[in-house]
Amino acid sequence: MTGFIGRNLRPKGFSTWKALLGVALPIVLLWPGIGVCAAVSADSEACVGCHTTVTPGIVADWAKSGHARVSPQEAAGKGTLERMVSFEKPPEKLGGNSVGCAECHTLNPDAHKDTVEHQGYRIHAVVSPSDCAVCHPAERNQYNENLMAHAYANLTANSLYEDLKNSINGVQTMEKGKLEAHSSDLATDQDSCLACHGTVVEVTGSVSRSTDMGDMEFPVLTGWPNQGVGRINPDGSKGSCASCHPRHQFSIETARKPSTCSQCHKGPDVPAYKVYSVSKHGNLYASLEKDWNFKGVPWVVGKDFTAPTCAACHMSLVVGPEGQVISERSHGAADRLPWRIFGLIYAHAHPKSPETSIIRNAEGLPLPTSLTGKPATDFLIDAAEQGKRKARMEKTCLSCHSQSWVDGHFARFENTLQVTDAMTLTATKLVMTAWEKGLAKGPALKDSVFNEAIEKKWVEQWLFYANSTRFSAAMSGADYGVFANGRWSMSKNVRDMQDWLDSRPGGARK
Amino acid sequence: MTGFIGRNLRPKGFSTWKALLGVALPIVLLWPGIGVCAAVSADSEACVGCHTTVTPGIVADWAKSGHARVSPQEAAGKGTLERMVSFEKPPEKLGGNSVGCAECHTLNPDAHKDTVEHQGYRIHAVVSPSDCAVCHPAERNQYNENLMAHAYANLTANSLYEDLKNSINGVQTMEKGKLEAHSSDLATDQDSCLACHGTVVEVTGSVSRSTDMGDMEFPVLTGWPNQGVGRINPDGSKGSCASCHPRHQFSIETARKPSTCSQCHKGPDVPAYKVYSVSKHGNLYASLEKDWNFKGVPWVVGKDFTAPTCAACHMSLVVGPEGQVISERSHGAADRLPWRIFGLIYAHAHPKSPETSIIRNAEGLPLPTSLTGKPATDFLIDAAEQGKRKARMEKTCLSCHSQSWVDGHFARFENTLQVTDAMTLTATKLVMTAWEKGLAKGPALKDSVFNEAIEKKWVEQWLFYANSTRFSAAMSGADYGVFANGRWSMSKNVRDMQDWLDSRPGGARK
Amino acid sequence: MTGFIGRNLRPKGFSTWKALLGVALPIVLLWPGIGVCAAVSADSEACVGCHTTVTPGIVADWAKSGHARVSPQEAAGKGTLERMVSFEKPPEKLGGNSVGCAECHTLNPDAHKDTVEHQGYRIHAVVSPSDCAVCHPAERNQYNENLMAHAYANLTANSLYEDLKNSINGVQTMEKGKLEAHSSDLATDQDSCLACHGTVVEVTGSVSRSTDMGDMEFPVLTGWPNQGVGRINPDGSKGSCASCHPRHQFSIETARKPSTCSQCHKGPDVPAYKVYSVSKHGNLYASLEKDWNFKGVPWVVGKDFTAPTCAACHMSLVVGPEGQVISERSHGAADRLPWRIFGLIYAHAHPKSPETSIIRNAEGLPLPTSLTGKPATDFLIDAAEQGKRKARMEKTCLSCHSQSWVDGHFARFENTLQVTDAMTLTATKLVMTAWEKGLAKGPALKDSVFNEAIEKKWVEQWLFYANSTRFSAAMSGADYGVFANGRWSMSKNVRDMQDWLDSRPGGARK
Repeated sequence: MTGFIGRNLRPKGFSTWKALLGVALPIVLLWPGIGVCAAVSADSEACVGCHTTVTPGIVADWAKSGHARVSPQEAAGKGTLERMVSFEKPPEKLGGNSVGCAECHTLNPDAHKDTVEHQGYRIHAVVSPSDCAVCHPAERNQYNENLMAHAYANLTANSLYEDLKNSINGVQTMEKGKLEAHSSDLATDQDSCLACHGTVVEVTGSVSRSTDMGDMEFPVLTGWPNQGVGRINPDGSKGSCASCHPRHQFSIETARKPSTCSQCHKGPDVPAYKVYSVSKHGNLYASLEKDWNFKGVPWVVGKDFTAPTCAACHMSLVVGPEGQVISERSHGAADRLPWRIFGLIYAHAHPKSPETSIIRNAEGLPLPTSLTGKPATDFLIDAAEQGKRKARMEKTCLSCHSQSWVDGHFARFENTLQVTDAMTLTATKLVMTAWEKGLAKGPALKDSVFNEAIEKKWVEQWLFYANSTRFSAAMSGADYGVFANGRWSMSKNVRDMQDWLDSRPGGARK
Repeated sequence: MTGFIGRNLRPKGFSTWKALLGVALPIVLLWPGIGVCAAVSADSEACVGCHTTVTPGIVADWAKSGHARVSPQEAAGKGTLERMVSFEKPPEKLGGNSVGCAECHTLNPDAHKDTVEHQGYRIHAVVSPSDCAVCHPAERNQYNENLMAHAYANLTANSLYEDLKNSINGVQTMEKGKLEAHSSDLATDQDSCLACHGTVVEVTGSVSRSTDMGDMEFPVLTGWPNQGVGRINPDGSKGSCASCHPRHQFSIETARKPSTCSQCHKGPDVPAYKVYSVSKHGNLYASLEKDWNFKGVPWVVGKDFTAPTCAACHMSLVVGPEGQVISERSHGAADRLPWRIFGLIYAHAHPKSPETSIIRNAEGLPLPTSLTGKPATDFLIDAAEQGKRKARMEKTCLSCHSQSWVDGHFARFENTLQVTDAMTLTATKLVMTAWEKGLAKGPALKDSVFNEAIEKKWVEQWLFYANSTRFSAAMSGADYGVFANGRWSMSKNVRDMQDWLDSRPGGARK
Repeated sequence: MTGFIGRNLRPKGFSTWKALLGVALPIVLLWPGIGVCAAVSADSEACVGCHTTVTPGIVADWAKSGHARVSPQEAAGKGTLERMVSFEKPPEKLGGNSVGCAECHTLNPDAHKDTVEHQGYRIHAVVSPSDCAVCHPAERNQYNENLMAHAYANLTANSLYEDLKNSINGVQTMEKGKLEAHSSDLATDQDSCLACHGTVVEVTGSVSRSTDMGDMEFPVLTGWPNQGVGRINPDGSKGSCASCHPRHQFSIETARKPSTCSQCHKGPDVPAYKVYSVSKHGNLYASLEKDWNFKGVPWVVGKDFTAPTCAACHMSLVVGPEGQVISERSHGAADRLPWRIFGLIYAHAHPKSPETSIIRNAEGLPLPTSLTGKPATDFLIDAAEQGKRKARMEKTCLSCHSQSWVDGHFARFENTLQVTDAMTLTATKLVMTAWEKGLAKGPALKDSVFNEAIEKKWVEQWLFYANSTRFSAAMSGADYGVFANGRWSMSKNVRDMQDWLDSRPGGARK
């Protein structure tokens, strides 16, 4: 029936998308360089019939995707290393059809609170990791153990981070000659922190709009649009696969390229992309990547790419020229990482659980270390687990580097963690001095530790400068550890903090 | 006669450029993938004869251009959407010839004050929008209504901006233990602000140089070189098409790519390029653009490109796969923009006239709002016009996004305008407090509002941080609205300003 | 014998690398588009036999290199301009073989203190410029005269720079409420300054590791890994060709692309890459480089590239379309530079010797100018030599620009040198005032001039802001001379310094 409606609604755009895709003829076609091109289901044909005109960009993009060209049935037939699906067997319902609009946007309609009646179908706008898991369950399961999947609550359920967020996003007004701080509004949070951490997408009602196809009802969604890594979806799932595999081409090439990671990892708080760009790896990428193969699965080191991208070191399945597996694919971004080097006051072993708001330090605060650097050991992975993760990372390094090279690199990196922690401790002692001397209001007075001028200098010491220096050490991006928010800034900042104390009545030194 | 001179002067380079271009044989040639290649006029042949040796880079670049390959006559024969010319009919004088050196550099010799006798020709170095308008009159006319065309006077005829410019560019010396400010010198202005805003290019004399072809006379030009958007040309016209269509390939590919805009739109005052780079659009561009078609006219959404560049949203003719026009080409950069979000103290409706130095606010200052944010309504477009411009912008968005997506995006953007304006007002009240308490010299004392330490913090609040946050909201480039000169910086800056006031004798709070 | 061992050790990876390379058949093969592919020596065959499995990335990368494809014998037969080797005649020992692993890693075993016995060979890990000089002696000799080759000692043998380094990299602790500075540790220096300047690589012992091939001995190296431009190698040579020609593809394409230079030239102290990126040259590169030819030797202006990269202006052999030489290849980066514009307090004529720690200014300090800007003339090139270098640079400019264009450009540049020097002098006078009034401890008290808050502001004036402004003038990257660490920052910084002085008891102005 739905197919019938689709055909009835078929506008003049209908033939165009077929031309784009080259399919939907009675027999499947050979797609040069790709192989047999899958057939489109009748339901998706109905969608495309209108949407070629309504949202031509989406349809054309999808037509270029693997989803349009390779059916799950065909994908299932590939070898273990070549497969991009992880189901036991392909969804029967699909037969030999490709993955089109309807295949994703009509899944699990009852679980999806954003489901609406739309031209005879029950569709939802917000495709979620649970939808993707029909064909990619291993990836969804790995991702659920990734800190990123929990990025929303890791921020909002942590009272200290909530305070930091308010101190940044909240409007400050002048009242009787004094600054007065206000909590941040939701739209601001969605436009800033939650853009990456993920919003809560909920249905709050519906709206009627007149369209070329007549009046239609659409759900009203809070927190929309959003493609943050920890998005809370209307079906209760967490995350958005589109964070790194953006709609509707879902190209593995995009996920493998470092620009994709830059969306959330370029700021001064987490300058991973900047550091990579000036590293030797990043230099090689910039100069030679046009000749690399970003579509090959599995990904062959040396042959397909000369230098790693973010994905190659942190997530991708990488093999050698004879198909020997060097690194397993993982959607857990910390699986190859012994240390967490950003976002917190000191470097520390990675948390055991991806839900970090449960952590309590010696002071009872939701932090992985105390204010002076003592780790909250019970909540963090131990040395043995750190060793395992480091060994996983080194496997990729050793494809191109000797053990001495790798050992030398990591010895320096771990030395830099100590040095940046020491410089952070100094800044912490300076802000504590301000609190003790009553030059700023600190935790003893139940005041925010993020809202005063001297406190903000302290935050920059760890959130910007120590982080930047650690990233630079991790990926050999020298100046981000020196003059570009690195050691220069750390050493200057403690002098500025000391200078500030000195110039206040009752300051540290006169 | 000129052709004859050209032939007489023909050096050994002559055959080289023909090889580059593959033309100038008795019959026109087929250019693979381009079509028939146009013939070169005898005059241009003369130019190229020498300049292949004298300036080989220019000649080779031109040989790759559309100007070398498609004659205006041929261009005139194309369909409305495919045409890259906007004349009623092609210049008769050209016949079927291509657009070569002589066709542009000898135009309107009497209007051009930089015209000189050169090897028997009356040529000028500074090709201007009036020259380009022989074939591209619509583009010139649109551009004349663009703020950019007036960027020179918008800066220099605005007394406040002139003061800001002097406070930045002027040398400050130490005189008897005190800083003394000087006005900026012209070469410095040309090397800084006017690089983008445009210089005044005037002939001040002539100079003789000995060349391989003997002694020659050349005009001496002020403000040269320059490719600023508001350049004042020797023929009195404004702007430089080469700002975005750089010489001598004039590739539409260059104008459509975001790097071109970065020349003037990457700094902390207007970080459009940076924000785009970390947006999902920018991510997709970086990872997939090598497979996009940047030369197709008209430009087909989805098929030719997956995600928009600056040009796609702000200027380009964009069509759907069936040729339906989604957005009309416009060289007025604000035609799809309801709000002006940078360069001024508060966000405001776009000015009615592209000449902004005529604007007066409630205080009589040449600003679109008062110091506390009240808009100079008489000089700004009204809500109806804002609605029209927003609708134009949304047309492009809707090629790939639903109405809910677009509505959600713009609701957040407009909320962010309010929040950044509120945070700017707070900074303004802080600097006003400094003026009132005599801690800084303000307008009441007829002193510059840009020259003292506390005033410069105030400037950074709006010129850097509020702007960056607004751009981030406009294009979803999250961290430029948070830690990369965004809300973090706004919230820290007002605390630093308060701290400064507090630590001064007679400051706001003791 | 070595070949025999190689064959004995040959694992299953053996056939793979042959497939990658397409060689080592009894007869040499035709490589499409490259020509005859050279044979691999028996020694290198032995290396590759194991290393295809052990370090597959290296082997695959080398297989794509010119070294793998063109034998020195064949290279010797090319024309003067086409040659990428500079020996008198090719090394006889190689016969017609390609340059494989053994050809470089077994050279000069006695000179290499890092030589070890490895599977019957005497190999060394650290291939040095002296090794490369077997085929590329002219390049090594030019490079030895380059400041970069001496970057290690230029930093570490200069007492002032050593002090600056310690003030940045040394941990500062809080002792009794006061900051206490410590000297930096070696691992930190290697992770920061020396990453670019180069480390000292020395053998300190050996280590045994169990491998798939049994237990093996490896040397323990200090300062490893490192690819800094002034690396001190175990054979006593200086530099690392891999800084710009990274292993093991050694692609000229990489050295010609600007990203490669960004590794060391992107930070706020030397923002050359950033400035280039927003220049018209950089814009054209970003939009059109995919169509340029980065492999052609010689490099033809206009035909192979439309706009110059770093290499084109500073180092490359550039010719016109008829093969006329426009610029000679040089590995001396200052050969086309009259002025040194970064890293020091004032702009100055380039040093005569690439060893700069020998320089003494009027005050006896190892600086090319006095603190107030007087040049240490005896150690700097004179006006005539400056003129020669400028003329060399202009030759490239004139390929695409007229003499008026070039003259106008350089006049502005030299004006900007004067203005930035004047603004630096003002900052110097401010810090001197602080020293005089006892508000900071300066040279008169034998204290560091880099360690106090006000001194660090002074450093930023020249090391960041004046430098950035000069680079912007040199390459027309406007905002790096205005709001992005340019004139805005210079003018603000002196006001902040004045403000600091004013607010101190006994400051300059009350």
